[in-house]
Amino acid sequence: MADTKVYQASTTAPVNIAVVKYWGKRDPKLNLPTNSSLSVTLSQSDLRTHTTAACSSTFGPEDTLLLNSSPQDVSGARTQACFRELRTLRSALEASNASLPKLASLPLRIVSENNFPTAAGLASSAAGFAALVRAIANLYELPSSPTELSRIARQGSGSACRSLFGGYVAWEMGANEDGSDSVAVEVAPASHWPTMRALILVVSAEKKGVSSTSGMQITVATSELSKHRFAVVVPKHMEAMKKAIQEKDFETFGKVTMVESNSFHATCLDTFPPIFYMNDVSKAAIRAVEDINTRAGKIIAAYTFDAGPNAVIYYEEENTDAVAGAVKGVLGELDGWEGKEVKVQDTKAIDAKAVQALKDGVSRVILTSVGEGPIRTQDSLISTIGEPIRK
Amino acid sequence: MADTKVYQASTTAPVNIAVVKYWGKRDPKLNLPTNSSLSVTLSQSDLRTHTTAACSSTFGPEDTLLLNSSPQDVSGARTQACFRELRTLRSALEASNASLPKLASLPLRIVSENNFPTAAGLASSAAGFAALVRAIANLYELPSSPTELSRIARQGSGSACRSLFGGYVAWEMGANEDGSDSVAVEVAPASHWPTMRALILVVSAEKKGVSSTSGMQITVATSELSKHRFAVVVPKHMEAMKKAIQEKDFETFGKVTMVESNSFHATCLDTFPPIFYMNDVSKAAIRAVEDINTRAGKIIAAYTFDAGPNAVIYYEEENTDAVAGAVKGVLGELDGWEGKEVKVQDTKAIDAKAVQALKDGVSRVILTSVGEGPIRTQDSLISTIGEPIRK
Repeated sequence: MADTKVYQASTTAPVNIAVVKYWGKRDPKLNLPTNSSLSVTLSQSDLRTHTTAACSSTFGPEDTLLLNSSPQDVSGARTQACFRELRTLRSALEASNASLPKLASLPLRIVSENNFPTAAGLASSAAGFAALVRAIANLYELPSSPTELSRIARQGSGSACRSLFGGYVAWEMGANEDGSDSVAVEVAPASHWPTMRALILVVSAEKKGVSSTSGMQITVATSELSKHRFAVVVPKHMEAMKKAIQEKDFETFGKVTMVESNSFHATCLDTFPPIFYMNDVSKAAIRAVEDINTRAGKIIAAYTFDAGPNAVIYYEEENTDAVAGAVKGVLGELDGWEGKEVKVQDTKAIDAKAVQALKDGVSRVILTSVGEGPIRTQDSLISTIGEPIRK
Repeated sequence: MADTKVYQASTTAPVNIAVVKYWGKRDPKLNLPTNSSLSVTLSQSDLRTHTTAACSSTFGPEDTLLLNSSPQDVSGARTQACFRELRTLRSALEASNASLPKLASLPLRIVSENNFPTAAGLASSAAGFAALVRAIANLYELPSSPTELSRIARQGSGSACRSLFGGYVAWEMGANEDGSDSVAVEVAPASHWPTMRALILVVSAEKKGVSSTSGMQITVATSELSKHRFAVVVPKHMEAMKKAIQEKDFETFGKVTMVESNSFHATCLDTFPPIFYMNDVSKAAIRAVEDINTRAGKIIAAYTFDAGPNAVIYYEEENTDAVAGAVKGVLGELDGWEGKEVKVQDTKAIDAKAVQALKDGVSRVILTSVGEGPIRTQDSLISTIGEPIRK
């Protein structure tokens, strides 16, 4: 009798926000980067992708992926690479143990939900591919370590490899041509420095103009300054950042985070034609952070910007009021402050023009913190008969 | 009997807009740059400083400078350096020819007028110091060449050295510690490539936030990427630009101009804290130029930005309608088009958001062209008895 069972497994996976940025591929097919990078994994209480992977002989014949109820194209080389690599690992397991069900050959049905807007510069593809790889690895009961899985997730979306760990995570660029050593490793678990907080100012939820994938290729092809960034700047920043995290030295962490973000956006501007991800609202966020630090007399807040205008501001829990409270003084009317204990501070310290630009341009805030890596869950997005469940 | 005569001489001097940018001093006292630079001198019909230098035993005891009717501080090291160097040259003349009047020891009275807003990023200090040095050199009847005078003007304001020539001008950084070889030279006279036009979009006439002088020092001190710019990027651009000018190759001239401007602003962004001179209106100007070039199928327009948000768009006369006409389609209501023959083009080719940002953010336009160096004039700003004349 044919096996018509619906096999399934679910996971959640986190967003990560880099403090040393990935921008540039030395091998676009394998997603091998021109430089190492380092990120903080954010708490899944606030930002996560939830994914259920299922397989069954009753599905198919095609693999499918539903994201926030919309069918996604899975025929692209990146998604196919992830499926193929995971199936290869499952096949090896099945070959070594004849009692295992033959899942590798079955069509996959993946259902995914983000609790945040897709493609708004909130690293949704990182959480998405990390969840996809982790969910299928769970479904296939692979014994692979997070670092081993990171090699696969990297092929889906470079920065996804870092979302397979919690806490503070490095993606070591590696040297091998086949990408076997281009993987994520834990720099420190969230528990090592649990007081790290992040305040995200969502500047625009519009889809961005230049995709990261094509943008970074043009940077590599045209930016003279990016050569120096890859060869000299990033290696320095990686070393300084790892040390700052080991020592829980926020001033260094913050300084390097800000300089790094600026260096990355400088190479975007040095691209031809130039790429602008930050806008005048982003600049107002930078000014606000500078003014908050000036008032504190030291670096207690650090901005960073990915490939979009949203500001992510890192700070330590003890400075919640001085940092998030000062921003709340400006943006207290917006969604995102509910349920978070933040005492409003006066905004006198912040430049009046920056205050106005933030009021005009920020649409919501997200308050979160360093968090854990992917978490297996019994909460499924696919029913026992294989139908997607709307949440 | 004491000589109470008022000696005087007048000149006008042009603005120059660099296509390879000066940003960074290796010696702040002597204004010795970290890299060579290259500029186009703009026509004095549209933008100029007019300066009269006078000296008399009836003046004083202090040297004075009136700019647009406002007394200026001349005690600063930069102005003092210019006065001192010019007096030294005059003293040598007087020593070698006893019949010459003893002007070097007399108090100076300088009166200057700009026909454009001061310190709005329109290179007013370049025209100002070039006019000051040229006017005093005229007053002292110095036989010095423009290159010799450029060594003096450079000490007043770096880019002023380039305003001592018309046409296409290089400031060779030099290697000597005393700055004796850090001077301006003519790359080509205006007559070599007289069809070069410039359209300036004045985005803001406010005084800028970070002065060039302090901004470039912070860049040198903090920007890692600037090291690569000084050592590798600028030398390449200087060579390419000189060749493009010799060959009147606008596509190369335009490409290098745009890449250069972006490289300079990238190092400003890589400065810590970051320096932003371009704003969202500047970015809209970049987009408009990109769209105009896309429509033309080649580079017929090139943007460049100095230490401020104003866009300067270079183009050739034959493309006046395609470039300036397209901008006039957007900004035809503004001041600055009067008396210039520009046929309005439809604006369909230009991104709608960029059109709106330009309409909202540009306050006036200036249409001008490549022009001549300082021109001696009998039109004086000081009366025969030494009083300033209001024009």
